Amino acid sequence: MSRLVATYHVRSDARSIEARARAVAVEQSVEMPLSAIEDQQILDEIVGRVDDIAEVSPGLFAVRIALSRATVGDDAGQLINMLFGNTSLQDDVVLHDAEFPDDVVAPCGGPNIGLEGLRERAGAEDRALTCSALKPQGLSPARLAELAARFARGGIDYIKDDHGLADQFYSPFAARCAAVAKTLRAVASETGRQTRYVPSLTGDLDALRAQIKAAKDNGIDTVMVQPMIMGLSNFVKLKRENPGLAFFAHPTLAGAARIAPALLFGKIFRMLGADALVFPNHGGRFGYTPDTCREIARAGLTDWHGLKAAVPVPAGGMTTKRVGEMLDFYGADVMLLIGGALLEARERLTEETAAFVAEVKRYRYG
Amino acid sequence: MSRLVATYHVRSDARSIEARARAVAVEQSVEMPLSAIEDQQILDEIVGRVDDIAEVSPGLFAVRIALSRATVGDDAGQLINMLFGNTSLQDDVVLHDAEFPDDVVAPCGGPNIGLEGLRERAGAEDRALTCSALKPQGLSPARLAELAARFARGGIDYIKDDHGLADQFYSPFAARCAAVAKTLRAVASETGRQTRYVPSLTGDLDALRAQIKAAKDNGIDTVMVQPMIMGLSNFVKLKRENPGLAFFAHPTLAGAARIAPALLFGKIFRMLGADALVFPNHGGRFGYTPDTCREIARAGLTDWHGLKAAVPVPAGGMTTKRVGEMLDFYGADVMLLIGGALLEARERLTEETAAFVAEVKRYRYG
Repeated sequence: MSRLVATYHVRSDARSIEARARAVAVEQSVEMPLSAIEDQQILDEIVGRVDDIAEVSPGLFAVRIALSRATVGDDAGQLINMLFGNTSLQDDVVLHDAEFPDDVVAPCGGPNIGLEGLRERAGAEDRALTCSALKPQGLSPARLAELAARFARGGIDYIKDDHGLADQFYSPFAARCAAVAKTLRAVASETGRQTRYVPSLTGDLDALRAQIKAAKDNGIDTVMVQPMIMGLSNFVKLKRENPGLAFFAHPTLAGAARIAPALLFGKIFRMLGADALVFPNHGGRFGYTPDTCREIARAGLTDWHGLKAAVPVPAGGMTTKRVGEMLDFYGADVMLLIGGALLEARERLTEETAAFVAEVKRYRYG
Repeated sequence: MSRLVATYHVRSDARSIEARARAVAVEQSVEMPLSAIEDQQILDEIVGRVDDIAEVSPGLFAVRIALSRATVGDDAGQLINMLFGNTSLQDDVVLHDAEFPDDVVAPCGGPNIGLEGLRERAGAEDRALTCSALKPQGLSPARLAELAARFARGGIDYIKDDHGLADQFYSPFAARCAAVAKTLRAVASETGRQTRYVPSLTGDLDALRAQIKAAKDNGIDTVMVQPMIMGLSNFVKLKRENPGLAFFAHPTLAGAARIAPALLFGKIFRMLGADALVFPNHGGRFGYTPDTCREIARAGLTDWHGLKAAVPVPAGGMTTKRVGEMLDFYGADVMLLIGGALLEARERLTEETAAFVAEVKRYRYG
């Protein structure tokens, strides 16, 4: 039976690291003293196996542990459980990376739409994609639709909900979809360009399904999900049930300090079915380094288990001034998301959006 | 409209803490520059409000932020999203505590079974409850049922699945429920004491419902869930659909370094519907301090919004030798869970279980 190989970064002194590595291997597999296990087959095939220990920097060790593929079954929640469930409770361990056999990836969400699908839908051949966000919380569907119209007249490709927009009384999900989709169709009939609305899904699986139905009823083909809040298994279920729907994955509650962002966003969210990976860009409101951001983008884009590339969406306090620098950094295979900085333009929102879009189109790619 | 009050512990220098606190308040509410917000009502009612900043220790500040109750709606996933969604991505902030108005708690799982219900079911008046765990991964239902029989003959109250047991080919959920429940009924007919089996649920909401049906079909009235993996909204849905079922909450993936354990386990899991709170005890395989453990237990037991007390279940490498010390520490309102250390007894499993149970019964409570 095949194995998953997880790499943990463990803080430890050199004297204790071997015992510590074995403890993680046991914690993430049988979770009991090996002396209490009678079956040789379980000791051989089920118990986690420490394959390698290497010092990364003084006091920090990369520990490679081969975990039993059998313990994971075909469920994404159980996958994260076996990769990092109990170990997430220990402060000195980060889940740094993982390699999955094909038969772990395949039962996840299945074929995704990916970067190229999102580009094709936007009619945006070889350039970076553009995106903005509907907010703030508290606006009515009609007011959000007005904002959407102004973004769309500026020529933006995608407009996502702020991830805090859910199904609140001041902006019920179905009413919001109806209002925004209708407005964007009206703008498209003026401009000839169809901007896509990406509403954010929340709630239990029943609620998520009802929201997808409401979105589809309004001709929407792209939605945003919050994998760490909805439960990974439910994301997989939605993706399988809606193979034509494109999914933006939002990083909320991803507490990425303890799971390496490149693994969580670039591999795990992508294998579940994500087509676009929203993450906090360096130099914004969050603490990610340029290296971390580059690794997330690379992980999302690289050939991997036959999945289509997922488009990196660096975000969190971005501005039009940073477009050139961001395209230098990420290249054309990116979606630039500017939310609050455009909204700050208030009555000049359409013009500022157009300037953002022009900057992205004007950039000399490769 | 009422507010939720969240307290964050923020690392910062004194000069920057006010701006930092305002930034968290914005991040967890409107997530955009306030200068771009035109509505006075949104500025007044929706934007998070910094109510207090106090230095806890040099460079660490407790920041109290009043968040809009309206943004949360009636969904538990959205609740954690608004409490700690994006801020979880910042390394220098911990969600330390929260106060919820009654109308946030009430739409959660509803009335719980609680400590007293679990005691009543076990026929264990005023003493601590006892529990052990079925493992390792890889055993068949028949072999797990054998183990369960030996625990039950030792007189244990509850036997939970190891949280890694899911629906794997070597131990399908329904077959495991059938085998273990049948065996425990057989033992009860010998001994007159019904030990309860607590199977662990995994998967998407459809799978969770199917597993509950399989459990109930076998007369099982207590199950274990993994709230951080299943998605909080789905836990609420299960609890509402199954008001008579008791729920153990497992801490897997709770990465408690970034959300204070007493808040996450003792308040949030409890309001979702948890009756028993499994957490890593101090002095075991995890790094929790005695103070953290005491706070978790206190949070779970204290009178709070009319919910029944949830029983603390300190675990993770416990042994019978520690029973006296743990009862001194926690008192009678506790469930002691010893898994691996009992299984290490191998052919003497029943005797060691009986010794554990006797120790708990012999203890002179208050």
